[in-house]
Amino acid sequence: MADPKFLKYVDEHQEEYIQRLAKAVSIPSVSGNLSYVKDVEAMGDFLLEQLTTLGVTAEKRAIGTHVLEGKEVDLPPVIIGQIGNDPKKKTLLVYGHYDVQPALKEDGWLYPPFELTRDPKGTGKLYGRGSTDDKGPVMGWLNVLEAHKNLGIPLPVNMKMCFEGMEENGSENLDKFIASEKDKFFTGVDCMCISDNYWLDTKTPCLTYGLRGINYYEIRISGPGADLHSGVFGGTVHEPMTDLILLMSKLVSPTGEILIPGVKEQIAPVTEDERKKFEAIHFEMKDIHGAVGGDQTISEDTVTTLMGRMRNPSLSLHGIEGAFSAPGSKTVIPASVKGKFSIRLVPNLGIKSTTELVVKYINDEFKKIGSKNRMECVLTHGGEPWIADPNHYSYRAAHKATEAVYGQAPDYTREGGSIPVTLDFANILNLNVLLLPVGRGDDGAHSTNEKIDTDNYIRGTKLLGTYMYELAKAE
Amino acid sequence: MADPKFLKYVDEHQEEYIQRLAKAVSIPSVSGNLSYVKDVEAMGDFLLEQLTTLGVTAEKRAIGTHVLEGKEVDLPPVIIGQIGNDPKKKTLLVYGHYDVQPALKEDGWLYPPFELTRDPKGTGKLYGRGSTDDKGPVMGWLNVLEAHKNLGIPLPVNMKMCFEGMEENGSENLDKFIASEKDKFFTGVDCMCISDNYWLDTKTPCLTYGLRGINYYEIRISGPGADLHSGVFGGTVHEPMTDLILLMSKLVSPTGEILIPGVKEQIAPVTEDERKKFEAIHFEMKDIHGAVGGDQTISEDTVTTLMGRMRNPSLSLHGIEGAFSAPGSKTVIPASVKGKFSIRLVPNLGIKSTTELVVKYINDEFKKIGSKNRMECVLTHGGEPWIADPNHYSYRAAHKATEAVYGQAPDYTREGGSIPVTLDFANILNLNVLLLPVGRGDDGAHSTNEKIDTDNYIRGTKLLGTYMYELAKAE
Repeated sequence: MADPKFLKYVDEHQEEYIQRLAKAVSIPSVSGNLSYVKDVEAMGDFLLEQLTTLGVTAEKRAIGTHVLEGKEVDLPPVIIGQIGNDPKKKTLLVYGHYDVQPALKEDGWLYPPFELTRDPKGTGKLYGRGSTDDKGPVMGWLNVLEAHKNLGIPLPVNMKMCFEGMEENGSENLDKFIASEKDKFFTGVDCMCISDNYWLDTKTPCLTYGLRGINYYEIRISGPGADLHSGVFGGTVHEPMTDLILLMSKLVSPTGEILIPGVKEQIAPVTEDERKKFEAIHFEMKDIHGAVGGDQTISEDTVTTLMGRMRNPSLSLHGIEGAFSAPGSKTVIPASVKGKFSIRLVPNLGIKSTTELVVKYINDEFKKIGSKNRMECVLTHGGEPWIADPNHYSYRAAHKATEAVYGQAPDYTREGGSIPVTLDFANILNLNVLLLPVGRGDDGAHSTNEKIDTDNYIRGTKLLGTYMYELAKAE
Repeated sequence: MADPKFLKYVDEHQEEYIQRLAKAVSIPSVSGNLSYVKDVEAMGDFLLEQLTTLGVTAEKRAIGTHVLEGKEVDLPPVIIGQIGNDPKKKTLLVYGHYDVQPALKEDGWLYPPFELTRDPKGTGKLYGRGSTDDKGPVMGWLNVLEAHKNLGIPLPVNMKMCFEGMEENGSENLDKFIASEKDKFFTGVDCMCISDNYWLDTKTPCLTYGLRGINYYEIRISGPGADLHSGVFGGTVHEPMTDLILLMSKLVSPTGEILIPGVKEQIAPVTEDERKKFEAIHFEMKDIHGAVGGDQTISEDTVTTLMGRMRNPSLSLHGIEGAFSAPGSKTVIPASVKGKFSIRLVPNLGIKSTTELVVKYINDEFKKIGSKNRMECVLTHGGEPWIADPNHYSYRAAHKATEAVYGQAPDYTREGGSIPVTLDFANILNLNVLLLPVGRGDDGAHSTNEKIDTDNYIRGTKLLGTYMYELAKAE
């Protein structure tokens, strides 16, 4: 249970907290765009100034350069900070990011994207780029610090912070920074909390303990020296598209079953505890039908559907490069084509072991075709899956904090997509990482009209603070 | 045998003939482009003036309007003409086109495309847009007329001419013009000759008696309301791409066998005469390997390869619209995709009967998948195959003319692609049509550095004239 004075302070300072978020949203810290380099820098400075004012020992750390639109520029600095150094307290590491996705009013925003705007209908929605991804949660941590400073109450845990400005552009060099600071800044950390994902629905708070990884592949087939006319050459040559379509058809069944031998067999078996967590998730089929915009779900069972999204691998065929892809008709035999597909990875299905199975299978199937074209199957990028122990004391603390703030137990979810920084922290620092979302599933991160609900922002601040108190007590 | 004075005249007037072609090439009559509308008109006027000067009763005929770059303009006129009206003579109909493909020096031309340029190496190649397609052959007919006029020799046959200026843009409205003039201008025609295709190789004259048709299809599959993220939805929904790739994989085998039941069974059987004509074609596997730019031929046998190109149907998979087709990686589940493929049609495999087989098969296969997505298979355009009787007196006349001019029997070829005007004339006027090419297989019609060899242009003029003499005698 959190200090009641803290909770009362949050309730009484909602307006200041919204102003803090408004200030953050007003800085268009779009990473990966030369026009916004100064804004990203300004956002880092704002964060540094806030942290310092709130009693945190903070500093900017340069992490090298990158090339933007042909020009070499500094990567946005990492802002690190520390408050509290009591050896009797646990030390919590917190991560967030201060950069945002691009946004232009013309994209279809109701309001200027870099002005935090309250829904005039009084729903409590706060619209603005970064409101939920990830400035809202980052300001949530600052709100907790402010409350404790102004109340004169020490934090229940020591806190270290790591905020980056390149998350929306691949977190370049962050892994190197973490590795280089493993035995310096990051030493003594007990566990970690990241608030940068979302509830599954719009009503139920959740703790997220897993992420699928991804292997992205290209099947590259080439033969003729140039594109050919199908009138002149159709029926006389081995067409690369025929070979490619046949190989791609052998990867996944229409019901989503991966047809590559050995893949299914590698998946970690479902434990009893895991199944119970899935069964407990608040989820109805209409939620996914609404999100899909149709009833094209493979299963009508919620647990099967949730496992399909969160804990089972999936294989998607994304498209073909080099073939005819425009509207209309073109009677071309493409000389060289690249088929693109990816496999979402889950525990025990790693980048390397999966790739061995995929490449062997594709090579074997291509040999069966007897084509004179050339083929290679290439992994173009890979990201490992991640799973945390949801019974770790950090999760138990977050569970209690959720019950205290929301009056209900959280769902235990996993994300179907990947958040690579999670793996970097978990693996390099060997830490339990808790993903503790503040925003709702309909917040529209990366989309137009991104928003956070005032209630989520304010209760989220309480949740993050209460989690610290529960963490302090946890064993 | 032609009148020897005619042949002597041609030999003695090569330079004037080249100048006539140079004048024609200098008019950039690019159809289907608003900037060149006046040039196409000027080329029609040049042709009309030439014909009139040469004693032909000729006129321009308007055939309606079309929309070019948003503006409604007149279609280039059809130039028709008649010379000779002797009821004791046969009447030959000749077709050609006076428009050309676009060409810009920057596309990679060695010389300005609209200046006929002699190869400075002295090979006799005459470079220029339209030199072989189709101004060279059209000027060839004019050369024949000029020789006879200046020599004071009557033509051995009555001659009707139909020249259009929209061939490179779909011959819009020409079919309507032919139908409307069937019992007027076109009445009394005995047979027809079109010189608008090419030898199979660079050495052997040929007569062309068949063209494959084409049915172009789209398999359209849609499901989700919008593109989905494969991390969030992979494994939970029926993906349109999975359905599409599976259906496309069931159309054709890697060795080019069409897998649609009933298609193979419809193909007209190979006759003994037909087989002999294929066996007699001058063709080596290195010809096709050179053209393909690789050794990816399905067969190493010349007759099988030639039949694959000319008399058997083929099915090519052209590409997919709506899926990811750019370089790089994108983890998209496309919501709506269109797979494109075409079937080259041959005698007995018509547009309608083939489409019935295709649509039924695709529907049946889609039902087997059990997908919740929506699918339709649509014929987007169709062109019937065409075959002429190669033993018709017109072919026999051309055979003798070839032997007389080239000292060798012609190959009997078919084209793998389609030339829709051939069908219009053959079917609407119920005529035997002879395709009698003047240019070589390496002339590069539609390509950069289009050329015609001086020898082909001059001997081509003799060939067209001699054909008339043989036609006059034929029974």
